[in-house]
Amino acid sequence: MKLTREEITAALVGLLGADSVIVEPVRMDPYLREPRKRFHQPAAAIALPHDVPALQALARWANEHRVPLIPQGGNTGLVGGQVPLGENEVVVSLVRLDKVRALNAEAGHMTLEAGVVLETAQSLAADAGALFPLYLASQGSARIGGVLSSNAGGVQVLAYGNARELCLGVEAVLADGRLYQGLGSLRKDNTGYDLKDLLIGAEGTLGFITAATLKLFPMPQGHETALCSVNSPEAALALFYDMRRRAAGTLTAFEIIPAFGLDIQLRHRMLDRDPTAGPSPWYCLLEISRPAGGPEGTLMAALEAAFESGGVDDAVIAESLEERARMWAFREQMSECQSREGASIKHDVSVPIAAVPELIARGSEAAVNLLPGIRPCPFGHMGDGNIHFNFSQPVDADPKAFMAGAEPIHAAIYEIVVGLGGSVSAEHGIGQLKTGLLASVKDPVALQMMAAIKAALDPHGILNPGKLLPPSP
Amino acid sequence: MKLTREEITAALVGLLGADSVIVEPVRMDPYLREPRKRFHQPAAAIALPHDVPALQALARWANEHRVPLIPQGGNTGLVGGQVPLGENEVVVSLVRLDKVRALNAEAGHMTLEAGVVLETAQSLAADAGALFPLYLASQGSARIGGVLSSNAGGVQVLAYGNARELCLGVEAVLADGRLYQGLGSLRKDNTGYDLKDLLIGAEGTLGFITAATLKLFPMPQGHETALCSVNSPEAALALFYDMRRRAAGTLTAFEIIPAFGLDIQLRHRMLDRDPTAGPSPWYCLLEISRPAGGPEGTLMAALEAAFESGGVDDAVIAESLEERARMWAFREQMSECQSREGASIKHDVSVPIAAVPELIARGSEAAVNLLPGIRPCPFGHMGDGNIHFNFSQPVDADPKAFMAGAEPIHAAIYEIVVGLGGSVSAEHGIGQLKTGLLASVKDPVALQMMAAIKAALDPHGILNPGKLLPPSP
Repeated sequence: MKLTREEITAALVGLLGADSVIVEPVRMDPYLREPRKRFHQPAAAIALPHDVPALQALARWANEHRVPLIPQGGNTGLVGGQVPLGENEVVVSLVRLDKVRALNAEAGHMTLEAGVVLETAQSLAADAGALFPLYLASQGSARIGGVLSSNAGGVQVLAYGNARELCLGVEAVLADGRLYQGLGSLRKDNTGYDLKDLLIGAEGTLGFITAATLKLFPMPQGHETALCSVNSPEAALALFYDMRRRAAGTLTAFEIIPAFGLDIQLRHRMLDRDPTAGPSPWYCLLEISRPAGGPEGTLMAALEAAFESGGVDDAVIAESLEERARMWAFREQMSECQSREGASIKHDVSVPIAAVPELIARGSEAAVNLLPGIRPCPFGHMGDGNIHFNFSQPVDADPKAFMAGAEPIHAAIYEIVVGLGGSVSAEHGIGQLKTGLLASVKDPVALQMMAAIKAALDPHGILNPGKLLPPSP
Repeated sequence: MKLTREEITAALVGLLGADSVIVEPVRMDPYLREPRKRFHQPAAAIALPHDVPALQALARWANEHRVPLIPQGGNTGLVGGQVPLGENEVVVSLVRLDKVRALNAEAGHMTLEAGVVLETAQSLAADAGALFPLYLASQGSARIGGVLSSNAGGVQVLAYGNARELCLGVEAVLADGRLYQGLGSLRKDNTGYDLKDLLIGAEGTLGFITAATLKLFPMPQGHETALCSVNSPEAALALFYDMRRRAAGTLTAFEIIPAFGLDIQLRHRMLDRDPTAGPSPWYCLLEISRPAGGPEGTLMAALEAAFESGGVDDAVIAESLEERARMWAFREQMSECQSREGASIKHDVSVPIAAVPELIARGSEAAVNLLPGIRPCPFGHMGDGNIHFNFSQPVDADPKAFMAGAEPIHAAIYEIVVGLGGSVSAEHGIGQLKTGLLASVKDPVALQMMAAIKAALDPHGILNPGKLLPPSP
């Protein structure tokens, strides 16, 4: 028999103590209101377990009584994975699990609990003289558990990989309260199935990640950063291939931005000065991280060769930390500058790197055909084949009417992406936003395997129901 | 009702054609005899499907009739994972699936079928001007499917990762013949559970990997290689930390070898000349791979600093390809030179990098206490915390009597490894050799999760039964 909301909250208080349960709507609100303000639903309560055994007890009880639990970290997800779908659901915030369990900068690893804020993790590493190279727009709020559950990406994936590749081991509470103890700093361990990588990116549908051992890297001695003017995405791709050949693993960022991005940032005075070498249809932001024993000037030498071969039209190399910061601001302000230009239709997609120019050309053309005046703004992680394929509304259009017409544009972009062998969610995951889309584009056998694994590890379906996995047909 | 051997072979011939089924014992033998000659058992037949649809039909039939299938690649595994346990089992060799489906060196990926030999994969990459950095002793026979199913390691894991990290996507035939289509070169794809990494390292118990998209890297412009004399594993560790800080991702190898290894190679005339700077208790082989745009001399500069700080006693930097080859031969001949010294008791283990000196000290002491005269020979991938902890028999001991006494030494080493948070199988996997050991050392919840996943994806247990997973208690 389904428990009532009162029975649920009474049981939670009994299990965790009154100070670990929030039931008043006004206090619940910050846990339910998420960045895109599209998925707001009431919940039965917010549970804030103090430690892992409390979380285990909570899961054991919920599994027995079939009460849905919604794992939540910093509540920064963009696809509604961390907020409830029904009012009998309990949001389980892991923010109180915030201990640093171990850190060894020389050996290259640290073990943090799920509730540690990403920015704190970066600082802990830096204070020990090491680098934790996961950088996201939301790093001031995002927490390690959520970062791993969504396999977050960011601007240095090119060199260091996604969150998955930055993690050596995890600890997790399963649906029935059992504790999977998979922490550890081993670089090689062939003793069974890769459960770590199954839990990472599972968006809380297979277990609560409660702690993780993360990789640390040597702190680079310095950076070489350039903003290059190129005349097309094809030229940007050729430049990327060339830079990668010359700089290999020291090339830590390669981003692309269209002229439109510069225009609107200058117009809205978001940059105190133009960081580029002058007007150009496209810009590439690229950065080399120099190891302690590495030489200076790799970037300059590589760019000189690119000039000679005609691959780059012009470039500015950052001569100061201030110039470097301005170049990065130009890239990082892209989302914000678009919002100042009105409404945007967005797509977080990836394609094979070689197909990025085709994606940009065909996607822009398709959208303009559907809605003349729409302003394509594809930008992002060129080196990962990951383009934030956004479209700003036509000048003077009505934002609501524009957004109401988003569906055909989504369909056109996703069709192109899938046709190119791409992904309809490169970074943000599926959450509740894209389960229907996933059902229509993902390999059906993959979906069947996912459903079988879900049923095996969470047979009563209490962990984040309705997220990530499409409903059974 | 269980099929007889005759019924099985008749059905196989009907399904695949007579030219794809081997039943004569003498022709089956090469598929059943494996490198360590310890796991030789008869099989019902060897099946050699010509293509993926044939393999799908075979699996569908076997699943329906509960006939065990044993996936096999190059038959180079060291733990008996690729050979049968019972005479009603069918070995399924994937050697005929050997097509190159795609290769794009600039974009950094190639898609190969499972039966492509590892050395061929390396050559394909090199011919296209790229690097596929997976190097194993068995690379002339090992095949891509087996390399991935066992998540093989090797000497460049330090910089490039294990086989798992070198793979972007896989295609696999499941137990019931369904085809999982997960190929693709995407660097970012957050659309569901990480099925690729679940299939990799599963030792053929969850599916047949039939093809894979593999990462390619820019070909280094050159290498800087040195053989350093250090007085202890602690000094080797300090040198590793220092080199890693100075060279970051360009440090592609850091191996440790004891004086014993040099002594016996010189005694057995396996080296035409001593490649070291002279007698020393320990040697470290380290190598930097220089990108096209990188400077020369990083290694020299780093070693000079290490000399000044007293971390290195002496060193030779390879001045020619011949000197480099001799240094690598010294490392690569370690297994062979031990076999010339008589019987060896071996352990393929890993520990957290910082614990390598303690592992070597405690493990050596424990073995010598158990068997005075035993000669410890710990060597291998220091930078990965992965030590091949081998012991040569006492001089003049009887090899058979020595091997008969292996069990207490295994127990002592594994106890130390587990106590240090290490792994009892760093590279070679579990196969049939270590299922009992795994049951005694692995997190019990991890074992339960593995069993649940196995039951979900192979409910009749036809894929490689008795391998990897411990028997149910």
